[in-house]
Amino acid sequence: MCGDCGCSGENGSRRLAVERDLLAANAGAAAANRAFFAERGILALNLVSSPGSGKTSILERTIAEFAGTVPVAVIEGDQQTANDAERIERAGARAVQVNTGSGCHLDARMVADAVAGLDPAPGSVVFIENVGNLVCPAMFDLGEAAKVAIVSVTEGEDKPEKYPYMFRAASLCLINKTDLLPHLDCDPARLRQSGLAVNPGLEFIELNAKTGQGFSSWLDWIGRERRRVAG
Amino acid sequence: MCGDCGCSGENGSRRLAVERDLLAANAGAAAANRAFFAERGILALNLVSSPGSGKTSILERTIAEFAGTVPVAVIEGDQQTANDAERIERAGARAVQVNTGSGCHLDARMVADAVAGLDPAPGSVVFIENVGNLVCPAMFDLGEAAKVAIVSVTEGEDKPEKYPYMFRAASLCLINKTDLLPHLDCDPARLRQSGLAVNPGLEFIELNAKTGQGFSSWLDWIGRERRRVAG
Repeated sequence: MCGDCGCSGENGSRRLAVERDLLAANAGAAAANRAFFAERGILALNLVSSPGSGKTSILERTIAEFAGTVPVAVIEGDQQTANDAERIERAGARAVQVNTGSGCHLDARMVADAVAGLDPAPGSVVFIENVGNLVCPAMFDLGEAAKVAIVSVTEGEDKPEKYPYMFRAASLCLINKTDLLPHLDCDPARLRQSGLAVNPGLEFIELNAKTGQGFSSWLDWIGRERRRVAG
Repeated sequence: MCGDCGCSGENGSRRLAVERDLLAANAGAAAANRAFFAERGILALNLVSSPGSGKTSILERTIAEFAGTVPVAVIEGDQQTANDAERIERAGARAVQVNTGSGCHLDARMVADAVAGLDPAPGSVVFIENVGNLVCPAMFDLGEAAKVAIVSVTEGEDKPEKYPYMFRAASLCLINKTDLLPHLDCDPARLRQSGLAVNPGLEFIELNAKTGQGFSSWLDWIGRERRRVAG
């Protein structure tokens, strides 16, 4: 556990005390976010992955597919730039960019502030695109209904076993960029096997943000989760 | 700054005090590592990148190219598994695996312990393959001569501007997986431009661990750095 991100291997007692306080403060803010989403029947999904796995491209296509049927709002986390929020707004959804500066993850208070700015409609879907980081965001509850881990087929088959905390924290794993499979030594079945080794309950959907392949399964999964939060 | 990884956006004074202590302790250990490497004319390079950018594949080919001419030892950082150290040993170099558990980066003390186990030869090259994370390892001096950032062309053109701390901390950026360019919307010139926007002194080499394209430039760069540390 290191500082507030709970991700360092070594500990002093003073640091542990600081970490406990920080994680407790985060848990309180996450609970408040969760209550806000529940009252309004909003499905909040926390998208987590390495940098460059295609989170924003997946969101662009998802927004296009939902156009006119499901209201969508997006919280974009990055160390710097507003590039992703601009892409999301061009795709047709409302977006707020959160720049974390030197920070390695979004925390629940950042999400609370962003949600206050977005004021998402009852029954909507709020996507939280976390900072690209397969380590630290695993430790932080943002009040989401589920963490969705995205891994692109270019990243190799053993990522879940190398980064088990993230794949244990996730409910669903999207395997993206399947159009590149003919050019790679990557077997998605082995990637699934690696994910199941650390989280036997993990679900998988192979998809492609460029071609739309697999999106019907992803939209169905979202639909199921929306019904669940609507109670 | 968060905890010891210096990568969170928000701060309390108690946390800041803990961070200062941790970074000071790391700086001391890094200085000791640097003195150890200098005494023996060892070039130590800290390889940093997102998960799955191809660090280990680059090392495998580098080791093969140096076989019989330059002694190489490798410190492999991952949250879990010994997969990478096993790959490196199969490639013909000595390797030590450091598992950080929930940790998001290597620190200088972990490297000191690993170096003690490796006992690298005078005049050798020690590669430190950091945990795959484009955020937290930027903050940690391990006593290396230089940080080498690796980015694969599948990750997009704007990564340096989104993750500026890492690309500011690096001396060289290896642009990997160039064989996939025909299948992607990625212009390496734009990636360079993004890197230079945050670090005007950053050098770039495009290469391909699969085909060997660009390796002569990378080996030349290492040779220049070896002469520099040999004084």
